Amino acid sequence: MHVTVDFTVVPVGTGVSLSEYIAACERVLAESGLTYQLHANGTNVEGEWEDVFSAIHRCHETLHAMGVPRIHTDIKLGTRTDRVQTMADKIKSVKEKLK
Amino acid sequence: MHVTVDFTVVPVGTGVSLSEYIAACERVLAESGLTYQLHANGTNVEGEWEDVFSAIHRCHETLHAMGVPRIHTDIKLGTRTDRVQTMADKIKSVKEKLK
Amino acid sequence: MHVTVDFTVVPVGTGVSLSEYIAACERVLAESGLTYQLHANGTNVEGEWEDVFSAIHRCHETLHAMGVPRIHTDIKLGTRTDRVQTMADKIKSVKEKLK
Amino acid sequence: MHVTVDFTVVPVGTGVSLSEYIAACERVLAESGLTYQLHANGTNVEGEWEDVFSAIHRCHETLHAMGVPRIHTDIKLGTRTDRVQTMADKIKSVKEKLK
Repeated sequence: MHVTVDFTVVPVGTGVSLSEYIAACERVLAESGLTYQLHANGTNVEGEWEDVFSAIHRCHETLHAMGVPRIHTDIKLGTRTDRVQTMADKIKSVKEKLK
Repeated sequence: MHVTVDFTVVPVGTGVSLSEYIAACERVLAESGLTYQLHANGTNVEGEWEDVFSAIHRCHETLHAMGVPRIHTDIKLGTRTDRVQTMADKIKSVKEKLK
Repeated sequence: MHVTVDFTVVPVGTGVSLSEYIAACERVLAESGLTYQLHANGTNVEGEWEDVFSAIHRCHETLHAMGVPRIHTDIKLGTRTDRVQTMADKIKSVKEKLK
Repeated sequence: MHVTVDFTVVPVGTGVSLSEYIAACERVLAESGLTYQLHANGTNVEGEWEDVFSAIHRCHETLHAMGVPRIHTDIKLGTRTDRVQTMADKIKSVKEKLK
């Protein structure tokens, strides 16, 4: 099942700066081979269900191994059966309506 | 890895009433053997990472099989290494602070 | 506009225990006069748009005043024009489908 | 209070294509004068609390006026007292860690 996901990892019980942890998750995604895109409040990623959730799992493992005691993660997940729609398609579709 | 999850399934492209779809997901959770609790805007569930995400996967499969063409799901996910905290513990911990 | 909201406040840059902060938000809700219900991963609240978002605003102000330097909050928000549906209605509607 | 928000509007009870509704919200944001950025699974926006939530409110009003009977919206909200951090700062901060 193809999924489009936006996820935001919030390390809890560490300092106020979170960028090193977000960067560590970006490296996990880079190694995964999945298509992904960092934005100001999260990361978009798409692919097969198992691959995407395995990557998020490894992200949690990586951050806990870095010493983060508690992690809160938000995931927005989309699946559809009518057609495959990539992340780029989604943005293009809105932009066309804005012309 | 033990996870505490709150998830909300939003079927898109069907009618305005969603309760039959939420009920279908509740049945998936009942069959999973996981601890779960329906609330007004989602369902809390806890267990091992693989078991919880397998259940949410089956929920998407079930709804698509019922004819839902598109599903948006929100997941709030918590993991921690300092201790295991059940859903009941979390509520109890806040209620004690409110005394 | 009537809204049904589920929100989860995640204090960042403090310790790993968050229950005292959640309790402080519950007190803000109690003072607001809104209908609300704590659950394992957040709080459901319903009422007029302005009243609900004012309460969440006061919750942020309260936690920052308690010394929390950074707050991440998730909000799931529902509005509908076909009918008013309370939080109790939503749960009842699913439970009837489960009979 | 300065806020950074990521929000995703999910119209329910209409068709499977949502781009015209997302575009309508983008127009509301354009008129608001706020800084915002569309991404594949939502829109990032930053500004004063009242301005940002007024814009999201107008987005709901606009979509209901277009005939959408039910709307589910996800909001990820961040506030901090240690410093002002723009959306551009947040991305830059992670990218520096990735060098």
